[in-house]
Amino acid sequence: MGFARHLVTEDKFLGGELVLMQPRDGYRAGVDPVFLAASVAAHDGESVLDLGCGVGAAGLCLARRVPGITLVGVERQPDYADLARKNAFDNDIDMEVIEADLADLPAEVKDRSFDHVIMNPPYYLRDRSTTSDDPGREAALFEDTPLATWIDIATRRLTHRGYLTMIQRAERLPEILGGMDDRLGSILVKPLLPRDGRAAVLVLVQARKGGRGAFRLAAPLILHDGAEHVGDSESYRREVSAILRDGAALPLW
Amino acid sequence: MGFARHLVTEDKFLGGELVLMQPRDGYRAGVDPVFLAASVAAHDGESVLDLGCGVGAAGLCLARRVPGITLVGVERQPDYADLARKNAFDNDIDMEVIEADLADLPAEVKDRSFDHVIMNPPYYLRDRSTTSDDPGREAALFEDTPLATWIDIATRRLTHRGYLTMIQRAERLPEILGGMDDRLGSILVKPLLPRDGRAAVLVLVQARKGGRGAFRLAAPLILHDGAEHVGDSESYRREVSAILRDGAALPLW
Repeated sequence: MGFARHLVTEDKFLGGELVLMQPRDGYRAGVDPVFLAASVAAHDGESVLDLGCGVGAAGLCLARRVPGITLVGVERQPDYADLARKNAFDNDIDMEVIEADLADLPAEVKDRSFDHVIMNPPYYLRDRSTTSDDPGREAALFEDTPLATWIDIATRRLTHRGYLTMIQRAERLPEILGGMDDRLGSILVKPLLPRDGRAAVLVLVQARKGGRGAFRLAAPLILHDGAEHVGDSESYRREVSAILRDGAALPLW
Repeated sequence: MGFARHLVTEDKFLGGELVLMQPRDGYRAGVDPVFLAASVAAHDGESVLDLGCGVGAAGLCLARRVPGITLVGVERQPDYADLARKNAFDNDIDMEVIEADLADLPAEVKDRSFDHVIMNPPYYLRDRSTTSDDPGREAALFEDTPLATWIDIATRRLTHRGYLTMIQRAERLPEILGGMDDRLGSILVKPLLPRDGRAAVLVLVQARKGGRGAFRLAAPLILHDGAEHVGDSESYRREVSAILRDGAALPLW
């Protein structure tokens, strides 16, 4: 099991404060789990469950910003779970990684509840015609488990007044909101726009178990300056660079 | 029937291109129906149904920008329906106003379908404890008819490939999206933010009957310049002034 060394890259996150091994050709964490982690207002002593943690990017980014959390990851694919454990160890972060399908969680997870559940579920519905030479990448990108199931499982694992936070493609927002039942409230959506004047590509969605607040559609986070992509450099806006390179928090409200 | 003259004001819309009589103390159309009308990409020769048209603000604004439409309004409250007819006449716009409850439409409406249905449903759920000296204002602001019913009725009245466009408080977005079933697609949400960095207060939501496009969360329209309200003047941003004062269209995408 596990990836051969030459099939893995080492990538810097948070300006090099976190280094993650990732499969060279598989699903690769980019900025999305970093935004997810930045948007979670966890405090010292709180527990965090990273559902479908992959190589651990979101949870480990969060633990880097808030070192006092208790961090548990669940990952279905053994190779990715192995990398998550290795990444936690190499970065000197305490993370318990449990290899399991989220629809069939073992008792060691089901018996616990968490102050925060974070997740970055696969972005695409599986197309039956899809074939891939890379089952790991495919499993991370394409969905076997409906989003409503992800949300239900996450909700069950939350403490009363605990927060669910997820990042997902904006076009699946109706599905996300439709998957949230009366157990969740105080729902907040933060659109992520590539540039000013463009439509949202991603949304951060947060909800609180037992929350009673009204739905809120927050001001968007705009990622890049300018109306067009110019040259080689990704001109992230200053507040975005602060999140990606300096590990700053991303207040959703 | 009808309001006594001293209980009615005359208000200018679209820089004075449209003058509307409105009850002095009742529900009063503000900028919301103007945004709604601006967002409807109707063409000459198309039919438009304004559901719950009140004094006719949205439909009449739209007819001012696109004079070639066939415009029908439905309004439950007789006094408001009367004003809508008078407003249409005084502004020399052809609008058929039908006095009816939207949940019990007469055959003259049910037998027809429309290229566009527009609506600005009441913003608040009726609180049983609410009492009001002004039943007209209350009926326009507080809801007897669930939003899902508004959407269902509107959808039935649409031609195949016709567009439903509505404006509503942002916090009811989950309810709106939840009320849209498989008959509607290509759903687009345009957030209206009072200022840069603030949460959306209103949303324009458009959907197409038989549409197959993905959900889109468009870039927000920001109403005012600056971070704070300064002095007496409402500093609408230039593109917003163009909509409100010059009758410009508001492209949703």
